[in-house]
Amino acid sequence: MKHLLLLGAGRSAPSLIQYLLAYCARSGHTLTLGDLDPEAARAQIQGYACAEAVAFDVQQPEQRLAQISRADLVVSLLPVSFHLLAARVCVELGKPLLTASYVSDEIKALDGEARAKGSLILMECGLDPGIDHMSAMRIIHRIRAGGGVLTAFETFTGGLLAPASALDNPWEYKFTWNPRNVVLAGMGGARFIQEGRFKYIPYHRLFRRTEIIHIPGYGFFEGYGNRDSLKYLDIYGIPEVRTLYRGTLRRPGFSKTWDIFVQLGATDDTYRMERVGSMTHRHFINSFLYYDPHNSVELKLAHYMNLDIDGQEMYKLRWLGMFDDTPVGLEQGTPAQILEHILKKRWSLAPGERDMIVMWHKFDYEQAGVPHQIQSHMVLEGIDPVQTAMARTVGLPLGIAARHVLEGSIRGTGVQTPVTPAVYEPILDELEQYGIRFAEREVQPA
Amino acid sequence: MKHLLLLGAGRSAPSLIQYLLAYCARSGHTLTLGDLDPEAARAQIQGYACAEAVAFDVQQPEQRLAQISRADLVVSLLPVSFHLLAARVCVELGKPLLTASYVSDEIKALDGEARAKGSLILMECGLDPGIDHMSAMRIIHRIRAGGGVLTAFETFTGGLLAPASALDNPWEYKFTWNPRNVVLAGMGGARFIQEGRFKYIPYHRLFRRTEIIHIPGYGFFEGYGNRDSLKYLDIYGIPEVRTLYRGTLRRPGFSKTWDIFVQLGATDDTYRMERVGSMTHRHFINSFLYYDPHNSVELKLAHYMNLDIDGQEMYKLRWLGMFDDTPVGLEQGTPAQILEHILKKRWSLAPGERDMIVMWHKFDYEQAGVPHQIQSHMVLEGIDPVQTAMARTVGLPLGIAARHVLEGSIRGTGVQTPVTPAVYEPILDELEQYGIRFAEREVQPA
Repeated sequence: MKHLLLLGAGRSAPSLIQYLLAYCARSGHTLTLGDLDPEAARAQIQGYACAEAVAFDVQQPEQRLAQISRADLVVSLLPVSFHLLAARVCVELGKPLLTASYVSDEIKALDGEARAKGSLILMECGLDPGIDHMSAMRIIHRIRAGGGVLTAFETFTGGLLAPASALDNPWEYKFTWNPRNVVLAGMGGARFIQEGRFKYIPYHRLFRRTEIIHIPGYGFFEGYGNRDSLKYLDIYGIPEVRTLYRGTLRRPGFSKTWDIFVQLGATDDTYRMERVGSMTHRHFINSFLYYDPHNSVELKLAHYMNLDIDGQEMYKLRWLGMFDDTPVGLEQGTPAQILEHILKKRWSLAPGERDMIVMWHKFDYEQAGVPHQIQSHMVLEGIDPVQTAMARTVGLPLGIAARHVLEGSIRGTGVQTPVTPAVYEPILDELEQYGIRFAEREVQPA
Repeated sequence: MKHLLLLGAGRSAPSLIQYLLAYCARSGHTLTLGDLDPEAARAQIQGYACAEAVAFDVQQPEQRLAQISRADLVVSLLPVSFHLLAARVCVELGKPLLTASYVSDEIKALDGEARAKGSLILMECGLDPGIDHMSAMRIIHRIRAGGGVLTAFETFTGGLLAPASALDNPWEYKFTWNPRNVVLAGMGGARFIQEGRFKYIPYHRLFRRTEIIHIPGYGFFEGYGNRDSLKYLDIYGIPEVRTLYRGTLRRPGFSKTWDIFVQLGATDDTYRMERVGSMTHRHFINSFLYYDPHNSVELKLAHYMNLDIDGQEMYKLRWLGMFDDTPVGLEQGTPAQILEHILKKRWSLAPGERDMIVMWHKFDYEQAGVPHQIQSHMVLEGIDPVQTAMARTVGLPLGIAARHVLEGSIRGTGVQTPVTPAVYEPILDELEQYGIRFAEREVQPA
């Protein structure tokens, strides 16, 4: 009998919790679910004798050590900055840790010690990063095994609304992931390689450098660049490719309107605004516009951003209530915090609404001198506002990986990502049972 | 006989050094000039028996303590981040420290201890910040003494080329201040208050939110916002004003072209670019543009930034050699470091070239219900590429302040800025002897 420790019972946890509870119930293992809010944790384990919920604060050293000492395996869904605290203890005690977050430089630095202590730190094992790596590496390895040489790889992932829930929403979008991360998304800009040239896009241009992607049966999407694609040359072991681009998917038109917030400075998280307590949505927008008492906020914004006053962008902003005299409802905050608070009023899933995850890969390769292209995609709709497609695609690969690590069918030590067949094959196979499966087609290269 | 310690012998030091050497020579005081490069320091004190030059590294604790212990007064022209190291020792030993830099939060936190130990930490005592505070406060205090109520205050300062040196330079600009600071200028955006409304401009909009300023006899300038003007409501003791705006001056057209670098992401200082060793100026620009092998870098840039291919902006960039196949000449660097390196090739003062400092204030006030406006300006041209107007306006107020502190005619303890008459009056009076004087006129309010 083994003991699992799961840290974090937030938005992306429900599917993972359900998976691990079912697994513990049938295998005799036990699970502790720790969260700052023990009531939220308790609600999620109801009816399972194999599980307990505890108040858990990873910043408390005694608690951290005590809980991790009891566990045979730890899964962390904590905010990114907290993984390191858990990882240090796991390495020290030689225990495995699984997360769905990017490998940070600090985590990477634990690799040597983790190997020495026999601890497996399996990072990037959620959706994006996670399923993207696994599904791409499966195809890249297959191309290579067939004698092909990969020349270009592009991959895009997005969390959106299911079409049936998007009809009455001009953004075709609501929050299904940490809203703060959505507001701050793209802040570091994007770096990638295209036809052998290194390319750099700063944050304030990112949402205008989009490309259109079509997925048969699902329609058109737009993609913008995601962080540093260059490091995947090494991680994927494909230094030979001349194009490597990772990006985020939205429905067409989203990015141009989101860019208005970026251009205004409304996503800035570096300073606190003045007199937030008396601020309305309209004041918030106006504080980024030039002073001109003779014209409306709407007209000033349209002029400043070169928008049609009755165009799609202004419509999307009106739909959000950005020009309303509604109080923001915060006492203080950075622009990003205030924007997040306003957006939550319209961008929270209502009962009956469902989200959708879309992932798309494009592989160009040469085989015997002939160019080929494979496109692959996965689309999954959510079940309800809790069992979202986001929660399922982030949580299930983690849960499956945790089971295999506990059972010894996934092994290893050190800081790892799921880019080897021994890790991705069993996870991808089992994900298909949950409807997370890829459709693949050969396309004539352009 | 007193002993002075001057830290930093860089670009803004020559006038300060000359002033303090002359003062020491006639008063019997002595001076130590410390710099990482002792040869550079030695060259600046030649012929003065009262002075010595030493190799000085403020990050060496023993050296820091030894040199400051010997001194009766310390003036620091070190890079901003190093002032704190010197300030801590000065406070500990109860010695006065003078700088031309903004009060940082860390320096501000020393206020209580500085008061307890009887140490005067006089910050913001150069040009901007420095002469701007002094000259503005003199007028603000006079308006108030005359029963006037200040309603609006705007102040702009710029370091430019003297008109005679600007004829053959479409930017009418070269570096006369730390080039790195010029490249990174504006990065935090600007915050200010206009007609009672708080306004925020992000970095990527700053250089397009300019205003035109006319100074009789000197022509037109453009100004963009400078950092956080809001804190000057308290510092100047003018919480009642409905407009407070601090900005930076350039010649018209500068900002729109500089903004191209900002929009490209060429001023980013957060990541290192790839393969810098083989990069040319042209590669540098192209790395921020979309991939398109069928069009030139020039056309791609003009299209991306919506510029006329033969317009003023493209001309300014060509003049800098930005499209040349010239190697950058660095082995590694962030975009900002590479841009600085390229700019230095054309933006360094040549023999015979002279710079110019321009400062402009506008005060709106009401007296007996009647609106009034005063505009005030100071223009100073440099003598040569070493005794620049920048070095004189940064160094002389510091030198004069140092003399008065040593002689006891400027007193005080704690962290201060030169906003009280006891500090600014003697400094402004003496600056007039060096040609640093303000012309003032009453203007009919708009």
